[in-house]
Amino acid sequence: MNEIKIFAPATIANLNCGFDILGCCIDGIGDEMIFRKSTEKGIRITKITDADLPYETSKNVAGVAALAIYETQNVNFGIEIEIHKKIKAGSGIGSSSASAAGAVFGVNELLGKPFSKKELVAFAMKGEVIASGSEHADNVAPCLLGNFTLIRGYNPLDIIEIKSPDDLFAVVLHPHIEVKTADARAVLSKEIPLKDAITQTGNLGGFIAGLYTNDYYLMGRSLQDVIVEPKRKHLIPHFDKVKAAALEHDALGCGISGAGPSIFALCKSKSTAEIVAENMKNAYENSGISFDTYVSKINPDGCKLI
Amino acid sequence: MNEIKIFAPATIANLNCGFDILGCCIDGIGDEMIFRKSTEKGIRITKITDADLPYETSKNVAGVAALAIYETQNVNFGIEIEIHKKIKAGSGIGSSSASAAGAVFGVNELLGKPFSKKELVAFAMKGEVIASGSEHADNVAPCLLGNFTLIRGYNPLDIIEIKSPDDLFAVVLHPHIEVKTADARAVLSKEIPLKDAITQTGNLGGFIAGLYTNDYYLMGRSLQDVIVEPKRKHLIPHFDKVKAAALEHDALGCGISGAGPSIFALCKSKSTAEIVAENMKNAYENSGISFDTYVSKINPDGCKLI
Repeated sequence: MNEIKIFAPATIANLNCGFDILGCCIDGIGDEMIFRKSTEKGIRITKITDADLPYETSKNVAGVAALAIYETQNVNFGIEIEIHKKIKAGSGIGSSSASAAGAVFGVNELLGKPFSKKELVAFAMKGEVIASGSEHADNVAPCLLGNFTLIRGYNPLDIIEIKSPDDLFAVVLHPHIEVKTADARAVLSKEIPLKDAITQTGNLGGFIAGLYTNDYYLMGRSLQDVIVEPKRKHLIPHFDKVKAAALEHDALGCGISGAGPSIFALCKSKSTAEIVAENMKNAYENSGISFDTYVSKINPDGCKLI
Repeated sequence: MNEIKIFAPATIANLNCGFDILGCCIDGIGDEMIFRKSTEKGIRITKITDADLPYETSKNVAGVAALAIYETQNVNFGIEIEIHKKIKAGSGIGSSSASAAGAVFGVNELLGKPFSKKELVAFAMKGEVIASGSEHADNVAPCLLGNFTLIRGYNPLDIIEIKSPDDLFAVVLHPHIEVKTADARAVLSKEIPLKDAITQTGNLGGFIAGLYTNDYYLMGRSLQDVIVEPKRKHLIPHFDKVKAAALEHDALGCGISGAGPSIFALCKSKSTAEIVAENMKNAYENSGISFDTYVSKINPDGCKLI
């Protein structure tokens, strides 16, 4: 196997009740990457389409992540990477994570799969540092593994994979505005009321229980965010209007995807998701801001060969 | 049915990662109560043994809870209650909750079971107000329902019952000291670091996932408390020593039961629990404080007729 092509899907992190620890994998939108063995050792990025990203390995999210795993093995070949970027940077659906996760997935394949997908998460996190300044796993884990992932803790990294109920669909509306990660962080308080932490913890517990019991409505009731959304929603024009439109049309829940600006909704069944998407679109139509929408089953596979 | 006798078991609330929302039911220790129909309408407490509690219905936890449910039905009889208190007040294993839960369970039986056990929780919470000043469900829910319960939220009350893995055992060490609820509350900060809330939420999610997947070690890794235990443990002499003794002998986790002073450990298997109990005892032996210990399977039944 000298050349492979892979798909690295978009992801939704936080999901209202799971700030910094919960994420899920979607489908239909994701990056494509090509990995090719070369005689010259090392990792080289040879082509990037649809994004203005650095080619220098040490400055590129995919490059750093790829190098982290490549350097664990003593091989007599190098790897060239082509990145075909379909997920827009700063969209809030795991653009940098797809680069990092896709990179380690592809390199692992060419190395002969020395690592499990779960083990790859730690390498992908090295790439995330370039994008966000810190190692976090709440997007790279679901991007690699598919379904839902819970990051129980980081010391040591403890990732729990949770299968999605079969009939669960996500809608994503991506307004074409930039929410700087620094701004999205600056609005958060470093201290929060204990009572809000208790509320959030109850909801996260309810959501996890809903996943294990296929209880869509428990999941829906649990999709509440008393900590982050109230602070961040002002960064996303018309957020409340879009959320109201989603909930009016039977979305289980709706919130900010990652740090935004994308807005997600979870729905029971594809037909509901399509109606919800239509209504979220209608709510945004006159905003003067262009946007994309996606409707997707929760992706059970994560990164894969194509 | 004119007279019944019931058992209202002890409970462990908080369980490290689930402050104010998580609880489980234990066995072997619990109150016994007798309920008897009388011609005179109303609720009367006719006997209390092993505790110095008020007989006046409106001032007694069991009385208030019993009255809350009794008044929903239009019946031509009254109910007399005998309370045989086996759980010491202020022990941290749900003494007042057993009174409240047992009362509504018993009265519901004599009323012809108009309510499900889950519906009874709201009535039992009325009794908890007398004991603690606020309606909370994290002990009364597991006392009534057995197993583990998660309180997802209070508005509206949303209780999730989670079956315990079969081989899960609890050890409780109850030091005979008083930790005043007011003191246990006063040491808590009203604001907590966001990063600690994230850690706690990850652990709660991990614990819930462990329960659904019978993953004892995931449950164990999740039994961590970065919010409450560091503040409260100083109220319990030798807490660190007892915890270390439990963990050294393969307890899955160890922490403060409710607001203390009881210390609990969860263990995989009865034999491990017995060894852990022995070592927790040894660690407390020279403290100069008398104590009781209990070893119990997680109780799947909750309140029951005996």
